[in-house]
Amino acid sequence: MAGVAVGGIALGAIGGYSLVTPKETIIEKEVEVPQEVPEYPWEYKKLDVEAVKDRAYAAYFDGGCAYGTFEGVVGELKEKVGFPYTTIPTKMAVWGKGGIVGWGLTCGAITGAGMALNLVTDNLALVNEIVGWYTTEEMPQYMPAVARKVEGELVKSVSGSPLCHASVSSYTDAADCEENSPERVERCGRLVADTAGKVAEMLNALADGTFTSTFQVPASVAECLSCHGADGPINNVFTKMDCTPCHGDPHTN
Amino acid sequence: MAGVAVGGIALGAIGGYSLVTPKETIIEKEVEVPQEVPEYPWEYKKLDVEAVKDRAYAAYFDGGCAYGTFEGVVGELKEKVGFPYTTIPTKMAVWGKGGIVGWGLTCGAITGAGMALNLVTDNLALVNEIVGWYTTEEMPQYMPAVARKVEGELVKSVSGSPLCHASVSSYTDAADCEENSPERVERCGRLVADTAGKVAEMLNALADGTFTSTFQVPASVAECLSCHGADGPINNVFTKMDCTPCHGDPHTN
Repeated sequence: MAGVAVGGIALGAIGGYSLVTPKETIIEKEVEVPQEVPEYPWEYKKLDVEAVKDRAYAAYFDGGCAYGTFEGVVGELKEKVGFPYTTIPTKMAVWGKGGIVGWGLTCGAITGAGMALNLVTDNLALVNEIVGWYTTEEMPQYMPAVARKVEGELVKSVSGSPLCHASVSSYTDAADCEENSPERVERCGRLVADTAGKVAEMLNALADGTFTSTFQVPASVAECLSCHGADGPINNVFTKMDCTPCHGDPHTN
Repeated sequence: MAGVAVGGIALGAIGGYSLVTPKETIIEKEVEVPQEVPEYPWEYKKLDVEAVKDRAYAAYFDGGCAYGTFEGVVGELKEKVGFPYTTIPTKMAVWGKGGIVGWGLTCGAITGAGMALNLVTDNLALVNEIVGWYTTEEMPQYMPAVARKVEGELVKSVSGSPLCHASVSSYTDAADCEENSPERVERCGRLVADTAGKVAEMLNALADGTFTSTFQVPASVAECLSCHGADGPINNVFTKMDCTPCHGDPHTN
């Protein structure tokens, strides 16, 4: 890629002599240089929450749940802010799908949210809030203009857990459907939209200086941690997850 | 940065007039243009596994487990490949620490590994492999030149689970230490080095065309999924995690 600019030629006469002014040729050679990436964390511009949801829902069907949330937020930032968000390949979040390629670990909607949040801010209270919110929010709420798998309202449920496996099984119980059914897939797509929208809401609030944490660790967890947590006599457990879905009450069972 | 080339000068005489042929000046100007971010996934150059481990261990004490693994791999790629890896702010992985800001979800070493792997390749078999490897590998193996918290050999254990909470508790049981003890912190720092090293090993093997998946879902999980998985009559569970640590055998208990 090299542009060529040719200088003009002027003719004149001085003292009976023809004079030809020098011909000047300027060859512009474009040299690619890495643009200087600004200091982290990067500039944020407030996002349209509904646009984020729509983009996240569409992205879910292109690369799964973690990509859905990440592309929903970062894709909009590419349009709104541009560089340096344009350097981020959002497909780097696909790995989180199905709680990490089907392991049923952290719900990918949360993984994509964590990546997006922490790209924009180093305030980790927002990450804690999205996990807590996910466990207590009745979802899905998002209603796509054109549904991909199942039209109309879906059964809603509260996951009670940030784990994909627990979230999916709680949904199949609530909706009386199979884990690989169109209803469950549709539910996860809409839940991704809900989660991406919540991320954008929180980031917008942070930009406005109005963000506050609301999630409280459930009383049942606090009770378990009073012995098993850092301030307890046993001190062998590190979590904020609800203990009972996995362990019941091991002291009475 | 502009090079200047000056054309030659020729003199002659036509019709009694001196004629000076135009002196041609060619000016080559270098114009800096922003380097375009290449198509995803990005170029990989084989890494020094020991350098990755050292960097990951140091980074753990700067930003936690997920940042440790991510910075261990991507930090080395910034040095070895440069652009476009230099555009990635590796602090965007801090959110994963303690299984996501202390929730005890996916071990941050795995979160950082997933982010790093998927930045370099879209081959998700490597992500599956790192999760399976983590659950079955005796760790920590890495021995720092200068330990940050506890010198010498540590008790080793097999986590049996990719969850931070389960991994930490299994370690405190094995090493008979508290969850926030220097031993446990040191163990997690070394485990991060081990995990980042495994990521680099796998990526190097992929570059050589020698990567193969070895992890097999345990027989106990396969048995549970024969009823509860996608091909079973109940079909309400989506996971590859070992079922028994959380659920025991619910059909006999």
